[in-house]
Amino acid sequence: MAADALPRDIEAVVRRVEAAGARAYVSRGFSRVIIGLVGDVDGLGALNLRAMPGVGAVTRISTKYKLVSREHRPGRSVVQVGGVPIGPDTVTLIAGPCAVETPDQTLAAARMARAAGATLLRGGAFKPRTSPYAFQGLGEAGLRILADVRAETGMPVVTEVVSAHDVDTVAAYADMLQIGTRNMQNFPLLQAVGAAGRPVLLKRGMSATIEEWLMAAEYIAQRGNLDIVLCERGIRTFEKSTRNTLDISAVPVAQWLSHLPVVVDPSHSGGRRELVLPLSRAAIVAGADGLIVDVHPHPETALCDGPQAIVTEDLPVLADTLTGLAAFMGRRLPAPAQAPASAQAPAEPLAEAVAEPT
Amino acid sequence: MAADALPRDIEAVVRRVEAAGARAYVSRGFSRVIIGLVGDVDGLGALNLRAMPGVGAVTRISTKYKLVSREHRPGRSVVQVGGVPIGPDTVTLIAGPCAVETPDQTLAAARMARAAGATLLRGGAFKPRTSPYAFQGLGEAGLRILADVRAETGMPVVTEVVSAHDVDTVAAYADMLQIGTRNMQNFPLLQAVGAAGRPVLLKRGMSATIEEWLMAAEYIAQRGNLDIVLCERGIRTFEKSTRNTLDISAVPVAQWLSHLPVVVDPSHSGGRRELVLPLSRAAIVAGADGLIVDVHPHPETALCDGPQAIVTEDLPVLADTLTGLAAFMGRRLPAPAQAPASAQAPAEPLAEAVAEPT
Amino acid sequence: MAADALPRDIEAVVRRVEAAGARAYVSRGFSRVIIGLVGDVDGLGALNLRAMPGVGAVTRISTKYKLVSREHRPGRSVVQVGGVPIGPDTVTLIAGPCAVETPDQTLAAARMARAAGATLLRGGAFKPRTSPYAFQGLGEAGLRILADVRAETGMPVVTEVVSAHDVDTVAAYADMLQIGTRNMQNFPLLQAVGAAGRPVLLKRGMSATIEEWLMAAEYIAQRGNLDIVLCERGIRTFEKSTRNTLDISAVPVAQWLSHLPVVVDPSHSGGRRELVLPLSRAAIVAGADGLIVDVHPHPETALCDGPQAIVTEDLPVLADTLTGLAAFMGRRLPAPAQAPASAQAPAEPLAEAVAEPT
Amino acid sequence: MAADALPRDIEAVVRRVEAAGARAYVSRGFSRVIIGLVGDVDGLGALNLRAMPGVGAVTRISTKYKLVSREHRPGRSVVQVGGVPIGPDTVTLIAGPCAVETPDQTLAAARMARAAGATLLRGGAFKPRTSPYAFQGLGEAGLRILADVRAETGMPVVTEVVSAHDVDTVAAYADMLQIGTRNMQNFPLLQAVGAAGRPVLLKRGMSATIEEWLMAAEYIAQRGNLDIVLCERGIRTFEKSTRNTLDISAVPVAQWLSHLPVVVDPSHSGGRRELVLPLSRAAIVAGADGLIVDVHPHPETALCDGPQAIVTEDLPVLADTLTGLAAFMGRRLPAPAQAPASAQAPAEPLAEAVAEPT
Repeated sequence: MAADALPRDIEAVVRRVEAAGARAYVSRGFSRVIIGLVGDVDGLGALNLRAMPGVGAVTRISTKYKLVSREHRPGRSVVQVGGVPIGPDTVTLIAGPCAVETPDQTLAAARMARAAGATLLRGGAFKPRTSPYAFQGLGEAGLRILADVRAETGMPVVTEVVSAHDVDTVAAYADMLQIGTRNMQNFPLLQAVGAAGRPVLLKRGMSATIEEWLMAAEYIAQRGNLDIVLCERGIRTFEKSTRNTLDISAVPVAQWLSHLPVVVDPSHSGGRRELVLPLSRAAIVAGADGLIVDVHPHPETALCDGPQAIVTEDLPVLADTLTGLAAFMGRRLPAPAQAPASAQAPAEPLAEAVAEPT
Repeated sequence: MAADALPRDIEAVVRRVEAAGARAYVSRGFSRVIIGLVGDVDGLGALNLRAMPGVGAVTRISTKYKLVSREHRPGRSVVQVGGVPIGPDTVTLIAGPCAVETPDQTLAAARMARAAGATLLRGGAFKPRTSPYAFQGLGEAGLRILADVRAETGMPVVTEVVSAHDVDTVAAYADMLQIGTRNMQNFPLLQAVGAAGRPVLLKRGMSATIEEWLMAAEYIAQRGNLDIVLCERGIRTFEKSTRNTLDISAVPVAQWLSHLPVVVDPSHSGGRRELVLPLSRAAIVAGADGLIVDVHPHPETALCDGPQAIVTEDLPVLADTLTGLAAFMGRRLPAPAQAPASAQAPAEPLAEAVAEPT
Repeated sequence: MAADALPRDIEAVVRRVEAAGARAYVSRGFSRVIIGLVGDVDGLGALNLRAMPGVGAVTRISTKYKLVSREHRPGRSVVQVGGVPIGPDTVTLIAGPCAVETPDQTLAAARMARAAGATLLRGGAFKPRTSPYAFQGLGEAGLRILADVRAETGMPVVTEVVSAHDVDTVAAYADMLQIGTRNMQNFPLLQAVGAAGRPVLLKRGMSATIEEWLMAAEYIAQRGNLDIVLCERGIRTFEKSTRNTLDISAVPVAQWLSHLPVVVDPSHSGGRRELVLPLSRAAIVAGADGLIVDVHPHPETALCDGPQAIVTEDLPVLADTLTGLAAFMGRRLPAPAQAPASAQAPAEPLAEAVAEPT
Repeated sequence: MAADALPRDIEAVVRRVEAAGARAYVSRGFSRVIIGLVGDVDGLGALNLRAMPGVGAVTRISTKYKLVSREHRPGRSVVQVGGVPIGPDTVTLIAGPCAVETPDQTLAAARMARAAGATLLRGGAFKPRTSPYAFQGLGEAGLRILADVRAETGMPVVTEVVSAHDVDTVAAYADMLQIGTRNMQNFPLLQAVGAAGRPVLLKRGMSATIEEWLMAAEYIAQRGNLDIVLCERGIRTFEKSTRNTLDISAVPVAQWLSHLPVVVDPSHSGGRRELVLPLSRAAIVAGADGLIVDVHPHPETALCDGPQAIVTEDLPVLADTLTGLAAFMGRRLPAPAQAPASAQAPAEPLAEAVAEPT
């Protein structure tokens, strides 16, 4: 209560709280009164106590998310993606091109990814771009390329979905659905992927707090899907020498608050190829459960984010880093997926798919 | 070019630029070479010059948006919403409840809005909420309430749409479609509202630069809809004594860069009722073309954002402020909409609509 | 207390608090215990309770500043600067060149300032510059120029001091000492100006919260000097189209928390001449007690911050704005200082002062 | 030049540049003209071209710092502190209490520091505190304690100086002078430590860009002192779950731009004891040349920043981490200082020093 709250203000708060079926504990000090509330927190939030006379501030003490919290599930979870685990015992590398451009480029990038130690293939078919004049992705033709490359390499596929309308289509091809940073609070999309029966990679919004990120995960979890992997990809700050500022502390903090695995995207965080290796190393020893890295066979002609893709000469260095630092952390690299990956590639030949971009 | 760029690096850049049909102008200094590029900027962007040997930095000089720029249309635009103008000659007040809760609450809020000088009614039927446990809005039942209140008061309706899937439904009831801060870069949604045949209120993303905001508007404009009103609603900063930090400078800056009208939301910027009047005054004299304000007949029981809603005693003060400061700025308040507003209210009785919330 | 706190943890906290002479009130809920503490807050802070077993979080409820708070002095203060008031009844314009360069330039700028309605003259003799290669000010020779211009125009002088070592020198010439944004937490300097017997203009640090700003003011106040004027000058954010982001909400918020006057610097906030008038208008109607504005007779050759200085043609517009909006806010412009300003100008002739810059 | 620049505007710019002895290269495109300038950059900055008619923007391409840049000295520097190196071949741990409180506490903390692998002792005698009511340090009595503990342990001493006035005193006791985050742009202080003949640890300002940090280092270097170590200690962002956001990318970026060593402060970055180890690991593999860590024998009673100090059980873990990850990075831990450290401890007995705090 404010310093100048009247006794009737205090009584009014207590009455409103008790009328809502909760309890109010009044602590009286020399200059101030504090009222502790116990009960259904969301119900209490709806009481709008802050607008009552004499109320100085309302501070919530319990967390705003439940299913994804450590209180709900004390251990740390493992999420399986087409037979490849992401969790506390492994360091899982997801790699591939920022955008799927052609079958050749995607297959070459997948082989690069594998050479770097990757067991999951990333690649964008639907691309959210800040400028409407930038390349927007191949759409379903890109998904078919990814499925073909999975059939060729055995690597399960992680790809972004940008609209609730596309979730079923993307889920028909992909092993894991990615929610991009701009869609972290696209709630209809979160609910749609929550119901799609695929694991989800949830990127942190570029100005989202860790708490908001976990609330976004809660939207997915509420639909019955707890196979969620959190992805730190840098936040927006005043510093402009990097594309974003990698919030390396978010890795352990999110792992303390939530049982979900946390991976790091060093490519989008730094926005420059030279930063990918230092940030990858930092992420692993900060405790990340994996990395997601852009690779491109010809970054100088990439249609999307070429400057941040690593190139062939970086691959063995990254592979050695992963092996060495995973061991330091008492972890291992996961085995490649064994069987044909779970989602089926469509029968159409690859060349045609590219001939008819959406 | 970097200080240590070789002559062959410079030649390579020039060749690549010219091969793409653009021109390269080389300026040689004592310690550095600068190459000026002229041609299709997006094509040049795809060349990925930054990844070439010897390139130090690539700086874009022209704007990344076209249709919404002052270069495209030198004057300032007027957007008509159900017969009410938003533009350089007027200060237009949009007011109403943050969320539509009941017919009575909405009608009472609309009457408050009118008493404050509003000519457009705002109210949320689809509510994007950070927490999945918070009230998510009445959905289509809420739209019907808004339409009924429009029929009763004659005030055209501004309401949010959160999913491309809902655009047709919302457009059937609303006079103006609002895109919320969390959806500023939801590109499928932007494209859908661009094709919906209704004016759009585009809120700035909470961490979006002014340039990104204008690129988001360009997504809408590209679909043939230039009836876009920009809404500054505060940005995310380190300061926590206000919900967001109102970027008052964004009003004139956006107006210099774009011909679109710019309005300000003092309610969500400050997040506290006491700030609504000071920020409203500041917005008008900074040159805003209008305001969008939360009002609620009973803010202490509001299901959404009660602490920031203004109350009955604030209404005449806001009305006087509008009149006085609009005159100071050489503007006027727009006349109320004359005829029945353009979108038709459905025939169903109001009580039933509320009895079956979505 | 954390959800898993043991009874002995709770007892230990209570014992430590009571041993320190304060009181602990225990509120027991279903899943958590909250302990309210009452007593000397700084003593309680030193107990370091957050490090004790079972403690979840420690939240301070009372303010961290005292002398400058509204609780200490409920009304709003007026600060007199050489006979010119800054406070709730007036809108006081402080104007002048960013840096003192020559007697002619300073005198011309002072006349411009007066034409714009200014009653106080600003001008920097000691300039803190981000780059060591930028012009650092004339030092004491600049102070002598300011004193001569005061003698000529009757305008009391506001000037920056950047080092505790210089405080006595600057105080010998100036009517008000300015603490710049980079020195807001230069505590020895704050203490030195607190003891110097001159009113102080305290600029907000570019990344300081309002609370930290008021704690910086408290450092000055503790030395017995409550003649402090707070100056909002923009904060650092991700937005780069303006030099800083003017936090217009800080004006009313700081006035609610503190009895000190609050002025706004529209020149440094925006960093561009075209923004000075819109931001000045916004500041006045947000309730600012004054403005501090850069003027320069020849901004195109200014040694410091030329792009943000207003020019001759802006002066009558600013004067009209001040008069019109001060009246709207129920305020007036202060009368010019009557008598010779309080601090004495040294006897040396002006030309010599300039001939020997420090 | 702006799109609507006139030919005479372009000529005026060229004439002014050439009159200043520099060269202007005009590149004419379809819609715009770009003028490249070559010459003395600071002289060109003083021309204030941005204020000229028709000028759209002025972009500086060369760096604003010289002596500390890689262009000035292509290799990476080693800074010797009392015989202990900080540079590219080593990972140097600086550890000790946040504040010097008593001889016993300081000696115990120094032994803890050594057990964790530290070869340099940190400890604050002059403490800049946000609140004037917080413990401000023991002053010179604290310096004497540090000198005594150095005599006892052989560890050279790193300690903060907060005022130009104190630099000689602190330099008489300390082996390295620390500039804190709030003083990064206290230019008189930077100049004073630049002339003091001791190596300097320069913490990054909490909202300073990397470029501004390097310009602050340039102030020190200009006085003839290139023995500067940069310290990343977290920046201010919107995220509040950590005290600051460690900008881990700043380590490699600063090392690319400057030859100076870069160390990381994981204690102040995270503000919580549990984050010290993860952030220390991340810092080493990101390439940091050292760490500076808070240790305290009894953090629960520390007078300053107790919650972030590591405790006895953390020491062997940190020591193993340092050894293991330094080896991974091809570095080693430096040998302890051999001889008596360079600065002399005063002769006064320890007990008296404490009996008379400043």
